[in-house]
Amino acid sequence: MESTDKRTAASTPASESALLRPSTAASAEYSALDFVLRVLLLAASVSAVVVMATSKQTERVPVPGFPPNVRVSNSAEFNNSPAFIYFMAALSLTGLYSIITTLASISVSRKAKIVLLVVALLDVVFLGIVASATGASGAVTYIGLRGNSHVRWNKICNVYDKFCRHIGSAVALSLLAGVVLVFLSMISTFTLYKRIR
Amino acid sequence: MESTDKRTAASTPASESALLRPSTAASAEYSALDFVLRVLLLAASVSAVVVMATSKQTERVPVPGFPPNVRVSNSAEFNNSPAFIYFMAALSLTGLYSIITTLASISVSRKAKIVLLVVALLDVVFLGIVASATGASGAVTYIGLRGNSHVRWNKICNVYDKFCRHIGSAVALSLLAGVVLVFLSMISTFTLYKRIR
Repeated sequence: MESTDKRTAASTPASESALLRPSTAASAEYSALDFVLRVLLLAASVSAVVVMATSKQTERVPVPGFPPNVRVSNSAEFNNSPAFIYFMAALSLTGLYSIITTLASISVSRKAKIVLLVVALLDVVFLGIVASATGASGAVTYIGLRGNSHVRWNKICNVYDKFCRHIGSAVALSLLAGVVLVFLSMISTFTLYKRIR
Repeated sequence: MESTDKRTAASTPASESALLRPSTAASAEYSALDFVLRVLLLAASVSAVVVMATSKQTERVPVPGFPPNVRVSNSAEFNNSPAFIYFMAALSLTGLYSIITTLASISVSRKAKIVLLVVALLDVVFLGIVASATGASGAVTYIGLRGNSHVRWNKICNVYDKFCRHIGSAVALSLLAGVVLVFLSMISTFTLYKRIR
């Protein structure tokens, strides 16, 4: 009984610091990874926006009902499709969000638990936004690439090749942004989980 | 010093139970909400799959290049579009996932922390899947509804009205499933957060 008491008394400060130490070390480790992923998110979303914005291509295309040598100048650009407009809005917002949360992860993350919570909640919302924008733009790009013979939607990528390369790359970049957001959410969850051990 | 020790000794069981009580009460509360949302997720994803699967519609449509009274029988169904095939796969998988996690939330959630963590991580992944499926199908449905005059993709919902009602409803249901998954992720995060207070 006495020995138990002695052990308890002696080990309290040690076990307390042992309880605190791995948590702090782990959260520092996660917060470094978190920072790197947030910078990657910023890079991916800003590149996606820039690549999509510079996709405009003008070609002289034949007019249906006229001989093939009668051609008019026609442009393909992202604001011809609501899916791409949504994409631009979503990825711009994500870029802005990633700037704010990168700054937050440098300055306050280890001190304020509430910041960790708010960022964890918002990461999930932005994942939903980025994933749906990727899906929408990916579906439209796929129709542009392959067409759909069942409903006679012709492919357009044989004419607007540069446009298609740009929108395809933008979709790939936003897929990367989505994957980064999945990992960020997982890290947030895991950091909270580690603290309740 | 003596009084401090006495207070500590006296209050330990009380403060321990006070620490445990709100956590348990809170987690019971959240776990009830979690259960309701998981059942809603099951309902939404299964309905979306059923509504999408029953969307087939056959119409007699005019053939281009022939007089308008020459018509052929043509079907619109979900497996004409890769976006809708992905939608079916994603929502079926989500339905299965929601059954498994509903059972998990009944049986083990309050005991096993690791189950809480795994479910929280998987919720985020399924949110990404459902959101991208919703985006892809929504984009294709929108082109079906309005067409795109810039690239001469004609609207098809004036012909295949029942088909469009079905795919539109399926997209709305999967949007609901996505929103439910956002809330489920938030609840998981919040439950973990409450435990580290």
